[in-house]
Amino acid sequence: MLNPVTDDLLDQLRATLPPATFREMTPAYLEEPRGRYQGQGGALLAPATTPEVAAIVRACAQARVGIVPFGGGTGLVGGQIQPEGPAPVILSLERMRAIRAVHPSENVLVAEAGAILADVQVAAEEAGRLFPLSLASEGSARIGGLLSTNAGGVNVLRYGNARDLCLGVEAVLPDGSVLHGLKRLRKDNTGYDLRHLLIGAEGSLGIITAAALKLVPPPAAAGAALLAVRDPAAALELLAMAQAQIGEGVSAFELIHRMGLDFLAETMPDIRQPWSDPPEWTVLIDLGLGAGQDPGAALERLFAAAFEAGLVSDGLIAQSQAQRIDFWTLRESIPLANRRIGAISSHDISVPLSAIPELIARGGPALAEIGNFRINCFGHVGDGNLHYNVFPRPGETRAQHENKRTAIKACVHDLVHDLGGSVSAEHGVGRLKVEDLERYADPAKLAAMRAIKDALDPAGIMNPGAVLRALS
Amino acid sequence: MLNPVTDDLLDQLRATLPPATFREMTPAYLEEPRGRYQGQGGALLAPATTPEVAAIVRACAQARVGIVPFGGGTGLVGGQIQPEGPAPVILSLERMRAIRAVHPSENVLVAEAGAILADVQVAAEEAGRLFPLSLASEGSARIGGLLSTNAGGVNVLRYGNARDLCLGVEAVLPDGSVLHGLKRLRKDNTGYDLRHLLIGAEGSLGIITAAALKLVPPPAAAGAALLAVRDPAAALELLAMAQAQIGEGVSAFELIHRMGLDFLAETMPDIRQPWSDPPEWTVLIDLGLGAGQDPGAALERLFAAAFEAGLVSDGLIAQSQAQRIDFWTLRESIPLANRRIGAISSHDISVPLSAIPELIARGGPALAEIGNFRINCFGHVGDGNLHYNVFPRPGETRAQHENKRTAIKACVHDLVHDLGGSVSAEHGVGRLKVEDLERYADPAKLAAMRAIKDALDPAGIMNPGAVLRALS
Repeated sequence: MLNPVTDDLLDQLRATLPPATFREMTPAYLEEPRGRYQGQGGALLAPATTPEVAAIVRACAQARVGIVPFGGGTGLVGGQIQPEGPAPVILSLERMRAIRAVHPSENVLVAEAGAILADVQVAAEEAGRLFPLSLASEGSARIGGLLSTNAGGVNVLRYGNARDLCLGVEAVLPDGSVLHGLKRLRKDNTGYDLRHLLIGAEGSLGIITAAALKLVPPPAAAGAALLAVRDPAAALELLAMAQAQIGEGVSAFELIHRMGLDFLAETMPDIRQPWSDPPEWTVLIDLGLGAGQDPGAALERLFAAAFEAGLVSDGLIAQSQAQRIDFWTLRESIPLANRRIGAISSHDISVPLSAIPELIARGGPALAEIGNFRINCFGHVGDGNLHYNVFPRPGETRAQHENKRTAIKACVHDLVHDLGGSVSAEHGVGRLKVEDLERYADPAKLAAMRAIKDALDPAGIMNPGAVLRALS
Repeated sequence: MLNPVTDDLLDQLRATLPPATFREMTPAYLEEPRGRYQGQGGALLAPATTPEVAAIVRACAQARVGIVPFGGGTGLVGGQIQPEGPAPVILSLERMRAIRAVHPSENVLVAEAGAILADVQVAAEEAGRLFPLSLASEGSARIGGLLSTNAGGVNVLRYGNARDLCLGVEAVLPDGSVLHGLKRLRKDNTGYDLRHLLIGAEGSLGIITAAALKLVPPPAAAGAALLAVRDPAAALELLAMAQAQIGEGVSAFELIHRMGLDFLAETMPDIRQPWSDPPEWTVLIDLGLGAGQDPGAALERLFAAAFEAGLVSDGLIAQSQAQRIDFWTLRESIPLANRRIGAISSHDISVPLSAIPELIARGGPALAEIGNFRINCFGHVGDGNLHYNVFPRPGETRAQHENKRTAIKACVHDLVHDLGGSVSAEHGVGRLKVEDLERYADPAKLAAMRAIKDALDPAGIMNPGAVLRALS
């Protein structure tokens, strides 16, 4: 059983840590973007160094006080918010935002956990390199949180998830010991891969304090196109065709439903709409090619072959980088439009690529048995990862359908599970999906997770209630 | 404390398992390629299904009998051989060699652990895809062992290590439960990544029984060149130049020292030598490009720019696939030539890319203080992974220097550690490097590894003594 933060604990910490560590709690640390959780925090601590993080963790371990690690606060599953239980320490990494080193010749950058993704991207760019992790919240999401949640985003197809972009981590483990794992190695087979265990553990096994990140040479030329595809199956055929023609040059492959364009037109009329007569399904494809290659020409060739094969009926190829950015603004604004419309239930799901058409074909009719809804299904189709979000009809509100939310979620998640998919593709488990994990995860996996958690964090102080239920 | 295999245990297993499970022990299961270990095995069991594997593990867990998982037997660190302690069950995956499914449209192949790498490569090729894991022992190494050791090989630069080519695993955990993790998903953030924990654990946390493997579209055209580089620093500059010009199209980038060519000339005179006057350092670069691109032309451009920059002095660009294969035969025969010469001590090490010149510059003089040796340093320089092997002078034998082996190993490993490197880049820890792990690994890492091992395998039955010391 955990204890709440006490003045004694804070006094003890004040004796060894600089005053700047102790912050005034503000509402920003107790909220999350979708407003589902209201957090509580007994104290807000913002250490400036890894030894300071370790000192806090050691003291909390001794006092059996919970710690909620806090990055940019952009997580969508409540991993950064503890709404109940003994008041925890909120440990913010915001003062540890140094880029410790850039090694362009190695394609490596070492950043502290509090570094903001956009700042890491800029540091890489200044060194003539690309850090390819990219997602809508990159202006505020921090490296520690991005790794702890194994963030995805738009470039996973080409460059992988956050875990694939990390060569090593430094972390404070639940006993306060420091894992020195910032190796800048492409190959290291010396024992269990603790890096991959901490990545995606959402702070429940320790606090990542710094990471060695992979950079890549930036593509010499980029291009993008919006293509009107016949249906989701045609989108997948188009993807295969694009990869056969262009190989790894395909950086992103996103699906957009007409519903998303409608939502944009309704809530953000300033966004330029690409189609006069919008097709049901649009694909945004983005290329990054090497020197001497022409993305526009490659996209023209792809369009011609896909048109010939009956996969696409219309297409817009960006004629400038400004137009390419317009295409991306369209895509990246859909989540905000969704928020303005107000989803009854949102689902961050993935299925095997070939199951996407079946998922979409079965999802609508299954939900229609629960009620009359609008569905906006969009996202990273090249990764099999869709955001499948359910909205009220025009003129209705999400509040009117609150009582159907559980049924909607179960309907979508059951279908995804049935198709061999995941009920959390890129957002993680946090606190929102602890029950989903218990329901859908393999029992042997759950048992092993619990055994690992108990072995590394026997008192259960690390992010209590996230990923796994808190011990009671 | 473990027990040896008993007739009682075997009788109990015979009651539930088919007779074909029980095999006659042969020396092949008690040897390893370098002859450093002589194994012992109380029984050889070769189950045909995952439930059969589970039944064996459950019975062994109950009887506290050790299990040594056995794949292709090609491991170089003794992970598949238990030379001491109570006689274990040797559990061979050789009968589980099915390719369970190929999903070309998803770029996924599902193989059982006993499938031989070359067979997986062929199955991928028949589906119009490429499984890019490739290494010298691919004709006998099996998928389960390749994943358990996180094998590397020649295409890591482009496609990653074995772990990067695996989407999911099915495994039997030390309590005999089956982890059903064969998801064919590119994104799945539902809890701790047990896949990555089992991969590289060398059978010490469970037995991988099947895996969902990533395929890629095969490059449309391949090309290769041998380039005489000024020195190791020039090799790294050449790599950066190649990646800037050709991007992900660079599939492999291997370093060859003149010593390797000398060994080939001495032990395998039939191998065609590329140079009349061999340079000290040669790079083998391999390209795989998309449709419409010309690898030969790309290599010519690269050579011209590198020559201009003073990085290379001579070059041979393969004029045919046959010649490309010749280049690779040269590279892939070096390990066999090494074996025929007879190394005093071999080292599979990695360092940050930019530290390679310093490693090579310091290594020779440091070893010269121990004795007069020949050094063959070669390998996957694009990954920072070199095989740094130390041989007797001509006319001497390794036996004459046996007493210097410990000092040689410590000299090389201390230097590597000092440069932030790894003393096992791709071969793993096995039993050969348990002490190295204890000496060089971060204490917090070692403690966490031990806690995880004890939590998942409290009796210590899984591959006792591999990676971590056996409990006594």
